Amino acid sequence: MKILPKDKKGLIEAAIGKKPCDLLIKNAKIVNVFTGEIYNGNIGVYDGFIAHISCSIDNSEILNIESKNQYDAKGKYVIPGLIDSHIHIESTLMTPRNFAKAVIPCGTTTVVTDPHEIANVYGVDGVKYMHDSSEGLPMRQYVLAPSCVPAVLGFENAGAEIFSEEIEEMLKLERVIGLGEVMDFLGVIENSDRMVNILSVLEERGMFIQGHAPFLSGKRLSAYLCGGARTDHESRTSQEAREKIRNGMYVDARESSISKNVKDVVNGVKDFRYLDNLTLCTDDREADEILERGHMNDVVRCAIESGLNPIDAIRCATLNSARELGITNLGGIAPGYVADLVFLEELETMNVESVIFNGEIVAEKGVLLKKIEDRKFEIEEKNSIHIKDLTVDDFKLKAPIENGVIKAKVIEYGSQVSSATQIIEEEVRVKDGCVFLEKEDDIKFVIVINRHGKINTKSIGLVKNFGINKGTIGSTVSHDSHNLTIVYNDINEALKVMNDLINIKGGISCAFDGEIKGHLQLEVAGLMTTKEAKEIAVVAEKMKITLREMGLTEIKNPLLRIVTLALPVIPEGKMSDLGLIDVNKKEIINIF
Amino acid sequence: MKILPKDKKGLIEAAIGKKPCDLLIKNAKIVNVFTGEIYNGNIGVYDGFIAHISCSIDNSEILNIESKNQYDAKGKYVIPGLIDSHIHIESTLMTPRNFAKAVIPCGTTTVVTDPHEIANVYGVDGVKYMHDSSEGLPMRQYVLAPSCVPAVLGFENAGAEIFSEEIEEMLKLERVIGLGEVMDFLGVIENSDRMVNILSVLEERGMFIQGHAPFLSGKRLSAYLCGGARTDHESRTSQEAREKIRNGMYVDARESSISKNVKDVVNGVKDFRYLDNLTLCTDDREADEILERGHMNDVVRCAIESGLNPIDAIRCATLNSARELGITNLGGIAPGYVADLVFLEELETMNVESVIFNGEIVAEKGVLLKKIEDRKFEIEEKNSIHIKDLTVDDFKLKAPIENGVIKAKVIEYGSQVSSATQIIEEEVRVKDGCVFLEKEDDIKFVIVINRHGKINTKSIGLVKNFGINKGTIGSTVSHDSHNLTIVYNDINEALKVMNDLINIKGGISCAFDGEIKGHLQLEVAGLMTTKEAKEIAVVAEKMKITLREMGLTEIKNPLLRIVTLALPVIPEGKMSDLGLIDVNKKEIINIF
Repeated sequence: MKILPKDKKGLIEAAIGKKPCDLLIKNAKIVNVFTGEIYNGNIGVYDGFIAHISCSIDNSEILNIESKNQYDAKGKYVIPGLIDSHIHIESTLMTPRNFAKAVIPCGTTTVVTDPHEIANVYGVDGVKYMHDSSEGLPMRQYVLAPSCVPAVLGFENAGAEIFSEEIEEMLKLERVIGLGEVMDFLGVIENSDRMVNILSVLEERGMFIQGHAPFLSGKRLSAYLCGGARTDHESRTSQEAREKIRNGMYVDARESSISKNVKDVVNGVKDFRYLDNLTLCTDDREADEILERGHMNDVVRCAIESGLNPIDAIRCATLNSARELGITNLGGIAPGYVADLVFLEELETMNVESVIFNGEIVAEKGVLLKKIEDRKFEIEEKNSIHIKDLTVDDFKLKAPIENGVIKAKVIEYGSQVSSATQIIEEEVRVKDGCVFLEKEDDIKFVIVINRHGKINTKSIGLVKNFGINKGTIGSTVSHDSHNLTIVYNDINEALKVMNDLINIKGGISCAFDGEIKGHLQLEVAGLMTTKEAKEIAVVAEKMKITLREMGLTEIKNPLLRIVTLALPVIPEGKMSDLGLIDVNKKEIINIF
Repeated sequence: MKILPKDKKGLIEAAIGKKPCDLLIKNAKIVNVFTGEIYNGNIGVYDGFIAHISCSIDNSEILNIESKNQYDAKGKYVIPGLIDSHIHIESTLMTPRNFAKAVIPCGTTTVVTDPHEIANVYGVDGVKYMHDSSEGLPMRQYVLAPSCVPAVLGFENAGAEIFSEEIEEMLKLERVIGLGEVMDFLGVIENSDRMVNILSVLEERGMFIQGHAPFLSGKRLSAYLCGGARTDHESRTSQEAREKIRNGMYVDARESSISKNVKDVVNGVKDFRYLDNLTLCTDDREADEILERGHMNDVVRCAIESGLNPIDAIRCATLNSARELGITNLGGIAPGYVADLVFLEELETMNVESVIFNGEIVAEKGVLLKKIEDRKFEIEEKNSIHIKDLTVDDFKLKAPIENGVIKAKVIEYGSQVSSATQIIEEEVRVKDGCVFLEKEDDIKFVIVINRHGKINTKSIGLVKNFGINKGTIGSTVSHDSHNLTIVYNDINEALKVMNDLINIKGGISCAFDGEIKGHLQLEVAGLMTTKEAKEIAVVAEKMKITLREMGLTEIKNPLLRIVTLALPVIPEGKMSDLGLIDVNKKEIINIF
């Protein structure tokens, strides 16, 4: 795949000097990711592409390039625009347009987003929204067709189901360049019809297939690779990263808000003779962290801090990612390449001075210079929370005995910082046919209520060591089905939280002492808000303080605690609107 | 682009161990081109693809892989099958099927051939022949659609002309994966209609475009890159290779029968931090050299001898080439990759022990094990030499004076080993209206006679320092138009050589003392023969001895002396059937 100029004839003429360039970047220290060299030079840009470079190496002289405009880099480093090889923009809580406003000043000029969150709510329409609303931005948002909606077929009801026909429909969109992370690895290695059909659509077209292979190793990893995906962003350990690169996989080292994997991945692979199968990504990084630490520039910084040579780290987030995607003129500073450029005072700190996208200066000193117009989209106005009137009784967990003590299957967290759980058996008290929990109990109820309006399923289970020691927390962000999920022990409070979330059209809400204590409104698909990063950060910060007060002190971002409780691809026990799921056995199991 | 297995479900099952592999390769020292490591391991192959690898690294144990058949590598190194990133199979003088017989035992499992020689004779039909006749071989012959037929439009009449419509037609063929070397670099950087239209066909499809940019540097190189090609096999100097890789180009270091560039290229780039833009190729390598030195294994050996680390050199001829072409599962030893493998006793010498193609053992100790059936193709039977009856008078160079001395433009070679020339002015004698040359004169006549049957053009010029001190040499191999080219001073001998070449349906023929002294028959399109490498080598060796006797002692392969005399892309002066061409000025100029 290649990014084509509008005026190719003009570009050739500008390169050879028959017509002036649009922009001359002079006095730049060019970081060459093809050779690893750094040298001084001038860069001529025309029609958004690099036309010509004149540099001072091998005794050559820096020559002037005729141009309409000039940009004096004043001796700063210039690197290719940063590429995020795997992201879900929904996880930033921002819309694609507001996301752009936040990350462009950080030097991120290209992202590859898998909109599988909104696809679980609105299906293909949600993907079209992500695609259409990112049109014309001063950054490149490539979109992948979500491959696993719902995450695991038959174990949850999401708002949509995507099969090969829907994939084919999405592939027709201009900036849809491949298949989103193939999470249903069991489906792949067991040749499930859904995955076989979807993968063949992509393989026949020779298109990019993004992988997702947590903990896969040995024969299972081999089988997954034979399935067609060749990338993975789920490496958590050095060993995992090593094994994957050895097997020819691209490892997208992740530094998300939840998972900080760059250090371990880099330590695992930095001594390899070749690093071109290593890229960097954010996966899920929230607005406040982007504001505080940065975006891809922060991930590159982490890689450097973890011991990677700065040029290698920059290459990982530029040329390597472009090659992983199969884009042949992105990620380097060379004639014919897209003129996405980032200027830095020094490489190690990755503090971005200014950003050029498509040959235009779009950000300087953290400020977006290019106006991103507000545009309205139907989906942003739509209500995605469809829950039929429930009463307190609906929040009661009915037991097969009237009174007494009964053994129940409980989802137990090992710690607040891990989303992995075990299924254990605990004795619980039953009163009047329902499970009864004390306030101080470290077992809580969890309810997952389908909110997509097609079906009225809901299910109640038990969760231990979730982390709150009082109150109730509820969320419409609940990977990947995004059904309304509430953790509580007071059924009245649970009802209040539910109604609060219905009122605000989705988001995260919490209550204690019988009162709503705060909420983060996410009115777009119950996942995002049309507010900008700064506003989100203020509300999110307040919410975090409240959630810490409720006991979520260990997890760095307590807002993210609840969002994976209903994610049936992370072992061992997870809840869905259909019941308690044993992820390893791929079974819905009875609580009692 | 991806190479797809026939039985993908089975491959996944074999990978995970649900069904046995077809072949287990055990006791191999695996050279991992993704990491640069070498370790012991077992490789399971199914349906021509690598299903699973079990290896002894990071304290892991080599596990058995269940399989129907076994191949004991006995501790030998195993590397991916070698890839020739740029070749014209016609230049080996062999047909695609006989070429395969010669190179497979050398470890070459994939070539990317640009059949522009036969395309200049037979147009699209010639390309279809190269494509169809290489079907079902135990090696992969990818074909490129020739981009510049004729080489320079308007300066010669070849047997065909190729424009964007013909390119589109060729792209429909299964193994046509891109555009052949874009030699008309002037057309590219000057936005000629032909090149603009042809390049846009490929760019719109995001397909591979092979470049050809001899001596291009600075702004001209930039303009060429903006034109769309991103590879080049014409680097002759270290500096040229460095500049090209710095500009994001893939440099295909060439070790052809004429041009030995690997040493200079390697010396130019071996200290770069990254070498993934470096590949290796043979371009034009003749049968006898393949027999004597090898094929891609010899080019890798040259790269190692030039100072490249052996694993780097192997990577250049495997993974780097596959990535240059955009093939995502070729060139590495990993699950899901094509099982093309080469076994070696030691890496440095690159002496090939055995070869596996598509999971099957196809060669061992230099012997082809897999039978390549002889097949007949219409084009192989066809006569491509269409020359209307000429007489001795047609070989006379007419002058604008009747008798005396006149200044004439002469093509002068600097040495026997270079194909570059200058146009000089010399005084020549005229007798009865025709130029008269003494036998001992170092100026000779050169005639180029259109042989393609559509038009009866011919043209006579003068050449100095060609290298023969007696006799006549003629060839139907005459890049790129492949018109019949004869160098002579005796018109009777010239006529004899022409008639000899007509009789044998094309080839190279020589005469002195009024007699034909030998010929190499190339009856397929006047370019190739259906004979095998060994037979060709015997005849070629005889011819070489004769040509050396005629004075061509300095050039390593004297058969190649005449074949570039009519190539109007190598400066400064070349002959075509239309006259003397000033290559730099792009003009046909008057001799007198």
